Amino acid sequence: MGVAFIGLGHMGLPMARNLAKAGHAVTGFDIVPALVERAAQAGIAPAPSIAACVSGAEWVVTMLPSSPHVRAAWAGPGGVLEHAPAGARFIDSSTIDPMAAREVAALAAARGHAMIDAPVSGGTAGAEAATLTFMVGGDAADFEAARALLASMGKNLVHCGAAGNGQVAKICNNLMLAIGMIATSEGMALATRLGMDPKVFAGIVNTSSGRCWSSDTYNPWPGVLDSAPASRGYTGGFGTDLMLKDLGLAADAARAAKVPILAGSLAQQLYQRHSSAGHGALDFSSIVMQVTGTAP
Amino acid sequence: MGVAFIGLGHMGLPMARNLAKAGHAVTGFDIVPALVERAAQAGIAPAPSIAACVSGAEWVVTMLPSSPHVRAAWAGPGGVLEHAPAGARFIDSSTIDPMAAREVAALAAARGHAMIDAPVSGGTAGAEAATLTFMVGGDAADFEAARALLASMGKNLVHCGAAGNGQVAKICNNLMLAIGMIATSEGMALATRLGMDPKVFAGIVNTSSGRCWSSDTYNPWPGVLDSAPASRGYTGGFGTDLMLKDLGLAADAARAAKVPILAGSLAQQLYQRHSSAGHGALDFSSIVMQVTGTAP
Amino acid sequence: MGVAFIGLGHMGLPMARNLAKAGHAVTGFDIVPALVERAAQAGIAPAPSIAACVSGAEWVVTMLPSSPHVRAAWAGPGGVLEHAPAGARFIDSSTIDPMAAREVAALAAARGHAMIDAPVSGGTAGAEAATLTFMVGGDAADFEAARALLASMGKNLVHCGAAGNGQVAKICNNLMLAIGMIATSEGMALATRLGMDPKVFAGIVNTSSGRCWSSDTYNPWPGVLDSAPASRGYTGGFGTDLMLKDLGLAADAARAAKVPILAGSLAQQLYQRHSSAGHGALDFSSIVMQVTGTAP
Amino acid sequence: MGVAFIGLGHMGLPMARNLAKAGHAVTGFDIVPALVERAAQAGIAPAPSIAACVSGAEWVVTMLPSSPHVRAAWAGPGGVLEHAPAGARFIDSSTIDPMAAREVAALAAARGHAMIDAPVSGGTAGAEAATLTFMVGGDAADFEAARALLASMGKNLVHCGAAGNGQVAKICNNLMLAIGMIATSEGMALATRLGMDPKVFAGIVNTSSGRCWSSDTYNPWPGVLDSAPASRGYTGGFGTDLMLKDLGLAADAARAAKVPILAGSLAQQLYQRHSSAGHGALDFSSIVMQVTGTAP
Repeated sequence: MGVAFIGLGHMGLPMARNLAKAGHAVTGFDIVPALVERAAQAGIAPAPSIAACVSGAEWVVTMLPSSPHVRAAWAGPGGVLEHAPAGARFIDSSTIDPMAAREVAALAAARGHAMIDAPVSGGTAGAEAATLTFMVGGDAADFEAARALLASMGKNLVHCGAAGNGQVAKICNNLMLAIGMIATSEGMALATRLGMDPKVFAGIVNTSSGRCWSSDTYNPWPGVLDSAPASRGYTGGFGTDLMLKDLGLAADAARAAKVPILAGSLAQQLYQRHSSAGHGALDFSSIVMQVTGTAP
Repeated sequence: MGVAFIGLGHMGLPMARNLAKAGHAVTGFDIVPALVERAAQAGIAPAPSIAACVSGAEWVVTMLPSSPHVRAAWAGPGGVLEHAPAGARFIDSSTIDPMAAREVAALAAARGHAMIDAPVSGGTAGAEAATLTFMVGGDAADFEAARALLASMGKNLVHCGAAGNGQVAKICNNLMLAIGMIATSEGMALATRLGMDPKVFAGIVNTSSGRCWSSDTYNPWPGVLDSAPASRGYTGGFGTDLMLKDLGLAADAARAAKVPILAGSLAQQLYQRHSSAGHGALDFSSIVMQVTGTAP
Repeated sequence: MGVAFIGLGHMGLPMARNLAKAGHAVTGFDIVPALVERAAQAGIAPAPSIAACVSGAEWVVTMLPSSPHVRAAWAGPGGVLEHAPAGARFIDSSTIDPMAAREVAALAAARGHAMIDAPVSGGTAGAEAATLTFMVGGDAADFEAARALLASMGKNLVHCGAAGNGQVAKICNNLMLAIGMIATSEGMALATRLGMDPKVFAGIVNTSSGRCWSSDTYNPWPGVLDSAPASRGYTGGFGTDLMLKDLGLAADAARAAKVPILAGSLAQQLYQRHSSAGHGALDFSSIVMQVTGTAP
Repeated sequence: MGVAFIGLGHMGLPMARNLAKAGHAVTGFDIVPALVERAAQAGIAPAPSIAACVSGAEWVVTMLPSSPHVRAAWAGPGGVLEHAPAGARFIDSSTIDPMAAREVAALAAARGHAMIDAPVSGGTAGAEAATLTFMVGGDAADFEAARALLASMGKNLVHCGAAGNGQVAKICNNLMLAIGMIATSEGMALATRLGMDPKVFAGIVNTSSGRCWSSDTYNPWPGVLDSAPASRGYTGGFGTDLMLKDLGLAADAARAAKVPILAGSLAQQLYQRHSSAGHGALDFSSIVMQVTGTAP
């Protein structure tokens, strides 16, 4: 199928490449011309504008950094909604606030286009390996229609309900993750400082009620899990600044929804402190340094 | 074997009873005479004093509410250390601060007694059913020596390292649990308020990185898990005031160890607020009410 | 002088009226026609549009609820910048984020207009009585030029530096105020619960290092200060929802400036909790109820 | 008058010396013999034990580091209560928890001794210069009886109500102070990072509702107040570790009184973090470094 892919950065490029590998005719656009050129070398047909990119497309996929970019690309002058062919189906894989996602979806619907929001988790490694998780908001039928396309780029496809719910699921999951990582950091630091072996303590917690993904799969204490970023200097993984971005979206959504999130808000400020101290590029599990004072 | 059991309250009585059922000769004492009488009806030989209780015992087990009680029972005038027969082995199953546990263990060792700290999780239901988890601090050989006795009262026996480490494991696990429950509450409340079905959201989180024991086994949102206290009005389970007690121990230990626990401390204050609002007897997962304003 | 006044709500109307009382020819506009009519009855010449309102004006003053309103009124189609006569001077008294204020001021400057941001404190009572405090950002000369006009509406005129600094001063002051009120609430609640007379405790604090505006001028404990909202059921004063709005601006500014504000963020969530519990219209000092559980 | 002074450390020695200077016959004791010797060189008659120290005393004053020391010195074996002459009056100037102060006062009363708790603020400089503030709990008559003696050591004598209330006043004041200093740090950091001159911002706040002792008398930003520790590298003043001790007392008291102190608890953890990072000896206003990441 003809797929227009807009946003060819660290995530977008490998996603577009996986679509091309799966046999789709992918045309790409980015406001940064160098990214379009790089994509061209990877077999993505270059387009000089959104209009050119979506011309003749059956699917339009976007992967953009924030709500203003998404609004501009879809609803701005010269955007997708102005130029997409009748009947084209839309997927936005950007992580943005749910309200913005719903607005854009409503605009698309008003013009007769089916649109789903489909933010991902799995990072650049997941994008390269086509093992992303897609959290999808939109009509069940539209989710089904997109299944094959998404399956070319990811492994887990989860339908989360109506438009915007893909965003809701992602930011609420990451809110819990951000707090859970701090909980694990405090627990590990305290147990260790009180004389326990970190591996022994993690082993006990992981079969008990303190267990969480941050303790059993992604432990922030160096040496507890060989596969975790903590055991390789907090490189790779999911960067502190990306977590900070998602916590910002959660805070905005909570403000709009009038839900007090005391722990989430504390987490947001601690990741901010960590980023401001120069650790924004480290994996987010390095937040344990904010408890111990240094890398433990 | 001859077992002296000191502390015959909600937890101690069923534990002593399970020892008796397993064929041990259990003598019991409590500073509240009525509890000794009740125990006597359950087949525990009543003793009028610690001295009488431990006379001739091969094992002494205590299950007491706090550090001062533990210090008094073991090291106070008329206490176990004064009266226990040479060679008797000691188990303290109270949840107290690790430093106090280590002090008492050192005093016992100085008199030639092997002692382990063995706090439990599992609540009164686990005590009744002999399915408690014991987190044990002390020498590996002493842990092994106690294995059969502990197995009469519980199911999971975990050796956590040297003296006091049973306490460390318990309070650090519960610190993580307390925060994780708040994280889950905020995530569930925000996702639901933003329009997601709570069961659908929980399902997604539980296969993703926001997963924790509080989300997949003990979810605080009514109706998500039929087996959780949330689905029966937050009755039963692990009371808010018990969690608050353990958070107090964690806070004390963190202060002594000079570890800043920002999230743990926030959790402590929120459970305090919840208790002060009159909900101390509800299961601790009712902390979700502090996020939603009411039972959701 | 001819003054165009845009935004005739609870604050704008009395401010415009005070300008008229001082002898200025005031023309008013609001997107809500009923507010224009009400203003007309108070001697403000009604205008049907921004274009009509600013036609011939020497000064344009805006008093609007948020950044999007301010951007639209000034820089949107049919806005002030399109229609204001050459040489007209601009004052924005809305409380908005400093970055937005700087953007609008730069657009005004690009068209040759002097503009100051001049958010106020003092509430509707101060607006009625012409006793507002104006915190002004912009060139010193432009501040001096506006002095007479501002003095018709307020009592304290403070120059805070370059464009946007009026907003910075206001939101940072209110950030400190919001936290200080919670500090005072916790101190008063704890001292009282520990057995001190609240007036005696307040008297000691107010001559000691715990002293702050919230303790000595606006004490949240009923009966300590007869003049404070706490002594009249938290009516009047500065509403919780207004404080919440300013904390939102502070949080946004802190995020943009990459400054971690742990206490400010906790305050924001507590005021959110208070508002969500139904107390948004009460004076913000009623936040003490979040410490005591009820009105003390 | 004959005064027994127990506890001759950094605070106790200059206090005892000021009593001697005022013409009292002061006998001193400390469990550290070297401190007794040093005091002897300053004109304090050395005593080898509490018994010897209080023998014949009309007044007994203690200045000790914590509750266990206070309990031991007064109520322990060989303590003041065992040995003080009938009719001797008691003053405890240690900063301890109010409950402990009340217990000791009750024990003294049971033996017929009038006792007041009289913790101080003003630090070692105030102790040297006899300018301390005394916050006094106890009967009004006992406060009056002690007035002359206290006036030899301090300048402000404040009666706070019944026994223990001196402690309550001190720790609740310092709780408010600790939070207020963080509020000021966040406000100063944010305003400065957003482009304001720190002195200009402080000037505005100090005439507005964000004003507090930390902003107008002890500003944490270097250069704002020449007299503040911030302008001399955070040396001198009131050390972070002393503030941390008082926050610990406040946390304990809040736990006992079942008052949730969310902001106080956050403050406690931030000062802990600051101390653990190696800044425990700096003035507590250096907490601003926890906001800015470094000394600003």
